[in-house]
Amino acid sequence: MRAPLWAAMAAVLFTGSILAGDAAAAQRETRIPQAAVDAAGELRERALASDLGFKITESLTTEVGPRLAGSEADARAVAWAQAKFRELGFDKVWTEPVTFPKWERRSEHAQVLGASAQPLQLTALGGSPGGTVEGEVVRFADLAALEAAPAGSLAGKIAFVDYAMPRAKDGAGYGPGGRVRSRGPSAAIRAGAAGFLMRSAGTDSHRMPHTGITRFDEGLKPVPSAALSAPDADQLARLAARGATRVRVALDCGWDGQATSYNVIGEIRGKGKPDEVVIIGGHLDSWDQGTGAIDDAAGVGLTMAAAKLIGQSKLRPARTVRVIAFANEEQGLYGGKAYADKHVAEVRKHQIGAESDFGAGRIYAYSSSAPDYAQAADKQIAEALAPLGIEHTPGKGGPGPDIGPFAAKGLAWARLAQDGTDYFDYHHTPDDTLDKIDPKALAQNVAAYAVFAYLAASADGDFGSAPKQVTPPEE
Amino acid sequence: MRAPLWAAMAAVLFTGSILAGDAAAAQRETRIPQAAVDAAGELRERALASDLGFKITESLTTEVGPRLAGSEADARAVAWAQAKFRELGFDKVWTEPVTFPKWERRSEHAQVLGASAQPLQLTALGGSPGGTVEGEVVRFADLAALEAAPAGSLAGKIAFVDYAMPRAKDGAGYGPGGRVRSRGPSAAIRAGAAGFLMRSAGTDSHRMPHTGITRFDEGLKPVPSAALSAPDADQLARLAARGATRVRVALDCGWDGQATSYNVIGEIRGKGKPDEVVIIGGHLDSWDQGTGAIDDAAGVGLTMAAAKLIGQSKLRPARTVRVIAFANEEQGLYGGKAYADKHVAEVRKHQIGAESDFGAGRIYAYSSSAPDYAQAADKQIAEALAPLGIEHTPGKGGPGPDIGPFAAKGLAWARLAQDGTDYFDYHHTPDDTLDKIDPKALAQNVAAYAVFAYLAASADGDFGSAPKQVTPPEE
Repeated sequence: MRAPLWAAMAAVLFTGSILAGDAAAAQRETRIPQAAVDAAGELRERALASDLGFKITESLTTEVGPRLAGSEADARAVAWAQAKFRELGFDKVWTEPVTFPKWERRSEHAQVLGASAQPLQLTALGGSPGGTVEGEVVRFADLAALEAAPAGSLAGKIAFVDYAMPRAKDGAGYGPGGRVRSRGPSAAIRAGAAGFLMRSAGTDSHRMPHTGITRFDEGLKPVPSAALSAPDADQLARLAARGATRVRVALDCGWDGQATSYNVIGEIRGKGKPDEVVIIGGHLDSWDQGTGAIDDAAGVGLTMAAAKLIGQSKLRPARTVRVIAFANEEQGLYGGKAYADKHVAEVRKHQIGAESDFGAGRIYAYSSSAPDYAQAADKQIAEALAPLGIEHTPGKGGPGPDIGPFAAKGLAWARLAQDGTDYFDYHHTPDDTLDKIDPKALAQNVAAYAVFAYLAASADGDFGSAPKQVTPPEE
Repeated sequence: MRAPLWAAMAAVLFTGSILAGDAAAAQRETRIPQAAVDAAGELRERALASDLGFKITESLTTEVGPRLAGSEADARAVAWAQAKFRELGFDKVWTEPVTFPKWERRSEHAQVLGASAQPLQLTALGGSPGGTVEGEVVRFADLAALEAAPAGSLAGKIAFVDYAMPRAKDGAGYGPGGRVRSRGPSAAIRAGAAGFLMRSAGTDSHRMPHTGITRFDEGLKPVPSAALSAPDADQLARLAARGATRVRVALDCGWDGQATSYNVIGEIRGKGKPDEVVIIGGHLDSWDQGTGAIDDAAGVGLTMAAAKLIGQSKLRPARTVRVIAFANEEQGLYGGKAYADKHVAEVRKHQIGAESDFGAGRIYAYSSSAPDYAQAADKQIAEALAPLGIEHTPGKGGPGPDIGPFAAKGLAWARLAQDGTDYFDYHHTPDDTLDKIDPKALAQNVAAYAVFAYLAASADGDFGSAPKQVTPPEE
């Protein structure tokens, strides 16, 4: 996942808009039939006892491995997802193309020069140009300090933002941490720097630099930009405190034309209103250094498993459950935007959507954008989730990243909040591998998504999806 | 540290030999004067309140960084150690040359080929030749399984020993784990393999392969040999279980002539018997990927600090405290062997020796090779250590690696056992960095070494050092 900030800001906007529209909808009340509530209880227990979500996650991370958007491995991931949907017996499987600029990492090296010569472990930020730069490091405690550097003051220097993001269950620390990554390079260029280094946006203390997409503001000439692992940032800070410290950063990476990948979609068809859909999913692409287990094979695996288990229920829900494995989330929500653009005219046919893209820690909170007239149904869902240790937190949070663009166009959304306490220990690093996932926690996730999707798909009435014009906040 | 097994086996031998010689020494009893015991109490509290050990450790790991034996950085480490001894006001500082074959790592890459193509993170074992090999992986659950493979059965294949060493406070798991590294490559070659892979001898689950020295048996043609990180070993095992899995391993590394480095030695002179010495120390070299913080800047830093604090005591001990920063421990105890060879004639002048080379976890146990006639003094030392939470465990353990060769020639030794529960999470990996050291635990180590060295140097009588012929056990 890459954009919790945007998601959180969007949440505020959407909630506001939907509540404003409530007056017109006062006549209807959405409720879930008792038979469905009963069936959801059985589904929940079945999901908790199943290892299907873990098995699917294992399959993707093992058989495909890292799958940078637009790479050969990404194409294999698309083939894998289609085959997996079919193997699981989904009723309908298809792909929708998603086109985006392709970025590649080939190699990356850095070293301290001079009397304390030693290598540094870093990783290029996604979107960074390649190039070799050498210069004295100027350390800034945070982004604001760099942004205050006068134009030209860093000529020939390498800016180093040494901000350590805090650990938080809900990932709140990624707001300021991610901002260093997205805004730091442009701020460095404005001050004249030849290169940009940052302490990784992460919470671990291993030699594991965290990558992630960055952007350069219009009109600026991009410079090589990279993140140091936490111990390397410590080291560089200590060296810089001892005296002038020169480093050489050599990145071989960059943009290379356009690529087309695919949103891969599978459906468990509803019985009664099969043309209306509940959408759940995760994103299929990953960064290139880990195997993308927590980010986001888990999201793909647990939503595929949830839908499969729904399909095995004695009582099929009225609506279709559609699972979307989104293309290229990491570099700009391309899959989510493409889905929203393609399906905007059918927003009313989309009952509600939820994406899992925050690892596989236990889900501890549920909320949604349900308007007043759907609060009763929302409460029924929350009650069915409560035995999983999930609290109802109305009004909190926002949609998952790939749901965001469609939510901005009027899609109702739900949030099943995962415990992300250790998510940023591994996020966007080589260490994002299968061993970081607790199979029992993943099964709890599957149970939660299954219960949510099943009940939302079974409701009499809607959750407020309706066409809407909202200007998304700037990234 | 590299050779706890050898140390443990040696301990058994030495204890036996020394006890056998006790009859001849029955006339003397070694005791420590009460004034020294009192002074040791003050020293202990002073050491606990000091951050000197951490400061020295920080200086070495930061200003020199990784320092593979024989490298340019190793030469800087030698200069650093001399300068640091002088800066700390040691009474005498000198070096003794140590010559050894030089091994270098230049690059290392590996990948799974075929339908699940993906990179693997591994590191060449020290002593491995370079070369690129490609072949089907044959997995063995442990070393015994590989050793049972018939000659020629692995022709054109790559052997993969997937043994996971267990975690233990005293590092006992490194016995079987380290054996895979030392014996696995030769076993693979005997079975005809083109290359050797192993799950790292480590206890973590990060993308951090653990290097370490290996040896090839006489008459065998060495093959590229490397260790996979634990998650990569998991991955390769899963892939191999799914079907024939080919990998390519490309190592650029190897031996490159002879190099000379130095044992760097500093003394706090005794008052009364300055020609008799207590030796303490650590090793100055490190593997090349981390900054050698727990292995073994900590050992160097804490023993330098202990001696410095002893020098600041109101009551100087009778004997000299000699701190040795040993050269090239990692590739074969070269510094320890050179010291033993050079000083063997003075073994009786060496009161006792102890090396810290097991990280900087809290010391929890004390033992020594003290013969019966020195048991009273040994107990006095143990009593002075007890307030630090250190238990007296007579008869357990053995000397530190670099003390081993001299102990085999008759040096009395002590063991201050560090809690190594997490030592093998970082050992010989890029992750061996300063942040892994708890400054408070390091201060406790300094206090323990200071108390031990001070009291041993103040004793009336000896701890049993005497010339001895013992055939060291085979490695």
